[in-house]
Amino acid sequence: MKRIKVSNNVIRRLPRYLRRLDELAAQGISRISSSELGQQLGLTPSQIRQDFSCFGEFGQQGYGYNVTALREEIARILGMDRGYSAVLIGVGNIGRALMDNFCFSAWGCKLLCAFDVDSGIIGKKLNGIPVRSMDELSAFLKSNTVDLAVLAVPNDSAKKVTAILTENGIEAIWNFTNVDIAAPESPLIVENLHFSDSLLSLTYYISDKKDEEAARNARLERQKSSAKN
Amino acid sequence: MKRIKVSNNVIRRLPRYLRRLDELAAQGISRISSSELGQQLGLTPSQIRQDFSCFGEFGQQGYGYNVTALREEIARILGMDRGYSAVLIGVGNIGRALMDNFCFSAWGCKLLCAFDVDSGIIGKKLNGIPVRSMDELSAFLKSNTVDLAVLAVPNDSAKKVTAILTENGIEAIWNFTNVDIAAPESPLIVENLHFSDSLLSLTYYISDKKDEEAARNARLERQKSSAKN
Repeated sequence: MKRIKVSNNVIRRLPRYLRRLDELAAQGISRISSSELGQQLGLTPSQIRQDFSCFGEFGQQGYGYNVTALREEIARILGMDRGYSAVLIGVGNIGRALMDNFCFSAWGCKLLCAFDVDSGIIGKKLNGIPVRSMDELSAFLKSNTVDLAVLAVPNDSAKKVTAILTENGIEAIWNFTNVDIAAPESPLIVENLHFSDSLLSLTYYISDKKDEEAARNARLERQKSSAKN
Repeated sequence: MKRIKVSNNVIRRLPRYLRRLDELAAQGISRISSSELGQQLGLTPSQIRQDFSCFGEFGQQGYGYNVTALREEIARILGMDRGYSAVLIGVGNIGRALMDNFCFSAWGCKLLCAFDVDSGIIGKKLNGIPVRSMDELSAFLKSNTVDLAVLAVPNDSAKKVTAILTENGIEAIWNFTNVDIAAPESPLIVENLHFSDSLLSLTYYISDKKDEEAARNARLERQKSSAKN
């Protein structure tokens, strides 16, 4: 299948569209206009039409989008129909949270097994997923098709484990550590979930809002005092 | 302090600059040129100069950036010097991971306490942080200054808990649920960590790479066979 190059920002919006379309389908809504969808997502209708036009035409003038058809198309674009297989490295709190609560299959991925160094859980199954020893990782990767690895190890072992993964043919890593595991020029596909980066963006926006409020209040004070005089 | 409006993309890059500058400082490097820094981060020197110019001039022609001074400035811009206070709602695996492993104070935030419904942990301290009953949440928010709430509850209670938070004056939420908790027009500041959105971006890029490889191989096959004839 020939694919079209799509901008990062569009790709980042696709999962949001998908979640919204799932919610609409759950509500029994079978079609939606670009303006309605835009309103629900805080996007302009033209932005939505533009985003979807990257992948061909779904909407019909005056009809809007077929919720199920659009959802299926977006899922296909995101690779959800490809049955990717994954391994999880590091069964700490984050790893455990993913094994217990994150439904990989709902997003088209199969979590084959997890790896850890803790003899207390090696050999056990957590939520049906076997936990193996890190010593078995290389052999497992050599003898199984694994499309992506979930990296949930402590920061100080992130780069060491990344080396083992790439040496054994892993080309994509979902990185939950706070470490930049790949050089910019590396062919490795890395999707980072840097918690601290996310928190700092939040504190930036809080600071921005507080400063705006402070500036507004200062203006009001000046106006009051000048009105008095 | 008057602040400058900065684009989202710049704000998203600031925490990466911060982490890199911390690494450089740890290596004893006291200054760096925009081209060196760009190379390390996969950005062009002009993009880096442009990013920093939003906040005034740090670099010196031919000297580069003072690592410590630039780091301090970025930390200030991100609000790390403001001592924000936070509460954590939901002490499941994710909540626990944040309490055990995420150093809020390193990013300028103080985690005051956590709230949960599990009587087995209510009243206990985890990593020094007290866990209180959800029943106490409203009262606590009324009698304490809380700048942000970390939402790590199950998806199905995300909106209910968000309502309690906003009704009690919370204006910013760090959202670990997979639910869109605020309408686009809401004044609530929300920073989402939607795990599934992140995974789907990764599977998109994997699919894109696999399709490119398949297309390249198909071309080579055609060339071979046409060479034979």
